[in-house]
Amino acid sequence: MSDELGGLYGVVLAGGTGTRLWPLSRAGHPKFLHPLTGTDASLLQATVDRLDLLAPMDRIFVVTGVAHAAAVSRQLESIPEANVLVEPSPRDSCAAIALAAAVIARRDPEAIMGSFASDHLISDKEGFTEVIRKAMVGAREGLLMTLGITPTRPETGYGYLQCGNAIGDGPVLAVEEFKEKPTYDVAEGYVKSGNYLWNAGMFVWRVDAFLAELTRQQPQLASGISRIAQAWDTGAREEVLGEVWPTLPRISVDYAVMEGAATVGRVGTVTGDFGWNDVGDFHTLGEVLAADPSGNVIVGHDLEQKSGVLLRETEGLVVVPTQGRLIAAMGVRDLVIVDTPDAVLVIPRERAQEVKSLVDELKELGQHGYV
Amino acid sequence: MSDELGGLYGVVLAGGTGTRLWPLSRAGHPKFLHPLTGTDASLLQATVDRLDLLAPMDRIFVVTGVAHAAAVSRQLESIPEANVLVEPSPRDSCAAIALAAAVIARRDPEAIMGSFASDHLISDKEGFTEVIRKAMVGAREGLLMTLGITPTRPETGYGYLQCGNAIGDGPVLAVEEFKEKPTYDVAEGYVKSGNYLWNAGMFVWRVDAFLAELTRQQPQLASGISRIAQAWDTGAREEVLGEVWPTLPRISVDYAVMEGAATVGRVGTVTGDFGWNDVGDFHTLGEVLAADPSGNVIVGHDLEQKSGVLLRETEGLVVVPTQGRLIAAMGVRDLVIVDTPDAVLVIPRERAQEVKSLVDELKELGQHGYV
Repeated sequence: MSDELGGLYGVVLAGGTGTRLWPLSRAGHPKFLHPLTGTDASLLQATVDRLDLLAPMDRIFVVTGVAHAAAVSRQLESIPEANVLVEPSPRDSCAAIALAAAVIARRDPEAIMGSFASDHLISDKEGFTEVIRKAMVGAREGLLMTLGITPTRPETGYGYLQCGNAIGDGPVLAVEEFKEKPTYDVAEGYVKSGNYLWNAGMFVWRVDAFLAELTRQQPQLASGISRIAQAWDTGAREEVLGEVWPTLPRISVDYAVMEGAATVGRVGTVTGDFGWNDVGDFHTLGEVLAADPSGNVIVGHDLEQKSGVLLRETEGLVVVPTQGRLIAAMGVRDLVIVDTPDAVLVIPRERAQEVKSLVDELKELGQHGYV
Repeated sequence: MSDELGGLYGVVLAGGTGTRLWPLSRAGHPKFLHPLTGTDASLLQATVDRLDLLAPMDRIFVVTGVAHAAAVSRQLESIPEANVLVEPSPRDSCAAIALAAAVIARRDPEAIMGSFASDHLISDKEGFTEVIRKAMVGAREGLLMTLGITPTRPETGYGYLQCGNAIGDGPVLAVEEFKEKPTYDVAEGYVKSGNYLWNAGMFVWRVDAFLAELTRQQPQLASGISRIAQAWDTGAREEVLGEVWPTLPRISVDYAVMEGAATVGRVGTVTGDFGWNDVGDFHTLGEVLAADPSGNVIVGHDLEQKSGVLLRETEGLVVVPTQGRLIAAMGVRDLVIVDTPDAVLVIPRERAQEVKSLVDELKELGQHGYV
């Protein structure tokens, strides 16, 4: 079946800082570079490894910024150098995805591409692979496919997909509307209705279908990307990138393309239940990684050996040790304790989202060294 | 009045690890070397500084072990090298105090000496000075004086002094008996009766009176110390110390001398209320240092600048930062958070005493590097 469909081109977006994972995640060392997976693999490496049943390594592309190009390249040694696309400056997700689509289209104009965040955890790789294969069926028909996650709670931190009828006789549902992060009451209504899915921000489409929608809805962005793509394999690439890239609008792919495409019936979804987690904060990270019998989760290196952590009479902790240092805790519960080479964080799990505000405060205080 | 009485010889005992202050206090860097005073001064330095209204620097002696001789010498630059008495091995407090008494007696046979722990905090220096002057009156009469603290709670972590009648017309009370650390019920009875004081472990006496009691009660120890003292100012000092010191009994001065002296009416006390704290653990340390309006105490360096600590919506914390690193905490209360170059501790204040058991566990695990 995989042969019948042709392979997938995988695009991994390695951008964003992950402020709610401070002090582990920093502007200089964002979360996708960290081993938050319960193994030695970074989130970025796990994202690429997860695609190996779908795409050979020479069909995997990563889009990243100038600050992390070197680290990303070294973590992903198995993908070709030419597949590391480095943005001159951050222009949000639409430009990044469009660049990858245009570069891939030069090689294979009808290629099916999947776009994936580099900082999500997925526990069921086979289930994930199966869902992507289903999405590829819709993509082959020309639909822009977005992956929907069956909601398990009225989460206010995610966007939602409002679903319509099945398209054809397959598993593909039409997406009628993209809904922004809702209030709690609205989210409760979504979950009860059964018609809404979490928007996981993972997309599968034919590059020609996507670029056509981009041209229809975002002509300026499309024409800039087109100029860059034409120069891509020439000596003028850096010149053109440097000139055109800064003029591209900063806009997310949801706003720029997906919402408008849904309105005209060009977006479909398949439901994924493959243990997806966006690793937004330490609390949710603790929910997906393996815990000890007291519910304590130790993240990162030394998971087997645990030599860097001493817990006595603790419950429900999320502990992030750093190499060569010890964290000792006794008689506390439901706390996040993070140690890094220059900063320690202690916060209740239920307030883990608010780490962001601590980072904001450090910036206000001019303590940029810690941010 | 100070001239009339003659000066004091101050003896500071710089020994002991302070296990309950782990991970700040280590075998290699015990608590008296740390700035736990709310200023840049270490506990040891503060102890010496506190004596400056009573004794000139050349009359201040410090007794320490081989492991900390260098650090102690450097922290106390203003006292003469000859006044740093280094024990070849730990033999408990009686040998340490007897050595100092014998060395002082060679210079001034009727000298009045005060013996002080190096790891206590005293907030009212003037009150302390006044109490020592009162104790010197009793000492001049030949009494072994011990300082008593008016108990403010039924503390089970201290020994107690059972007091008798006033001696003469001064402030000096007879001490009838030394009581070991009591149970809570017994301690409650002590506090209610009004006849008991906390035994602060600070002594004032004439060196000849102390050495006479030592000879009477501990003839072996007294004769060993006497041999060492005779060799002190000769080329044989190290030879004799090395031979005799290891044969001295390991015994505290309370058991060895003070209890027996009390039985025969030779111990007196004066009451001190000068903000005494033995800095036994992080909780009690937090009780004596200045807190912010939310009751958070930041210990050690950077007290003014607080650059290494970011607290949001926290109450009652005791935070011990380390240089060049940040501790950030939000939404937690009544915790001890200690950061050191190689270990972090998080524990509720009410369990601060139990840090000792974590250290024991680390030893059992063979993690001696952290102990």
